[in-house]
Amino acid sequence: MFITIEGPEGSGKTTAVDDAVKKLKAMDYQIVRTREPGGTPISEQIRNVILDKNNTAMDKRTEALLYAASRRQHLVEKIWLAIKEGKIVICDRYLDSSLAYQGGARQLGIENILTVNEFATEGTFPDLTLLIDIEPEIGLARIMKNVDREVNRLDLEKLDFHQKVRQTFLQLAKRYPERYVIIDASKDRETVAKATLDAILARL
Amino acid sequence: MFITIEGPEGSGKTTAVDDAVKKLKAMDYQIVRTREPGGTPISEQIRNVILDKNNTAMDKRTEALLYAASRRQHLVEKIWLAIKEGKIVICDRYLDSSLAYQGGARQLGIENILTVNEFATEGTFPDLTLLIDIEPEIGLARIMKNVDREVNRLDLEKLDFHQKVRQTFLQLAKRYPERYVIIDASKDRETVAKATLDAILARL
Repeated sequence: MFITIEGPEGSGKTTAVDDAVKKLKAMDYQIVRTREPGGTPISEQIRNVILDKNNTAMDKRTEALLYAASRRQHLVEKIWLAIKEGKIVICDRYLDSSLAYQGGARQLGIENILTVNEFATEGTFPDLTLLIDIEPEIGLARIMKNVDREVNRLDLEKLDFHQKVRQTFLQLAKRYPERYVIIDASKDRETVAKATLDAILARL
Repeated sequence: MFITIEGPEGSGKTTAVDDAVKKLKAMDYQIVRTREPGGTPISEQIRNVILDKNNTAMDKRTEALLYAASRRQHLVEKIWLAIKEGKIVICDRYLDSSLAYQGGARQLGIENILTVNEFATEGTFPDLTLLIDIEPEIGLARIMKNVDREVNRLDLEKLDFHQKVRQTFLQLAKRYPERYVIIDASKDRETVAKATLDAILARL
């Protein structure tokens, strides 16, 4: 079972999943919680190239290819092995983030990014994708007042960019209704956590 | 004008092009001689990840994506600019090497590698590709007795691998007859250099 968690910045993805995973573990489910680059040395090295602040000349297609390369290695070294062992893999962000950020918001085209990622993943799509959905205005306001979390480069992109990201996620949810569940993240923490847990349990 | 030089190991590509470039420069042509990663810092960083001897866990699809990423950046930062300035770009190895090595010999499939590289290059194919062709037995024997040249990892692959590389190059020459010219590299240096120069001049 392969579950991915997606959503715009500040949607509260991490908290929602933390809460759900705690309860799943208490029910004796074997959970592998991961996120790219997933601690695999090669993926880490690739991410370092992407995130290096000196690499301002990086073209957006180069970036998309590097994300796909890092994803591939994480899949081969970690996700496939855990799935094979019968574990439930919960991954914070996966290919839908590339589709939403590079494909939609950076306008490289969803189909283009999908093609590259089909090569990278050999068609390994999640069984379940939880879209922790929030309006960008609310998400960004949350980040700005959260002192525990450092504001990163993406947080500071224009609001318009974040709206495109969200719109693309909602478009993907329509395109893949069989694997997408949308969680309304404007609700209180307990409600969001319960909706997240229920969506996972319904699929197990 | 964008010219690429391809061929199996030990075909004498570098010498043939050195000789031809010298004569072209004497005729006042503006030549930019390059090879991936082309001295662009981002491409260099990507190549370092590919070539790092500790990265033995690298999956072959990860490798193919990294080559495509490095190629993209080299194209954006160097090749496109030189072509725009009206220069003749001569590049040692380009996408056909990925098609022959990753697609053919490593068996990822030519169409798969082509798809990824179409994304990377936005369809920037060479105007002319010179295949400096040699039988792998002869090419490898040349490398082994050439004390000036360090034997690299690819040289040591099994002969079978190099035969697949050559067969794929010959297959590509049939697929793209309008841009491919095959140079018989079993001939003496002077003959090979003349054939290389003639092929370039015929295209200018």
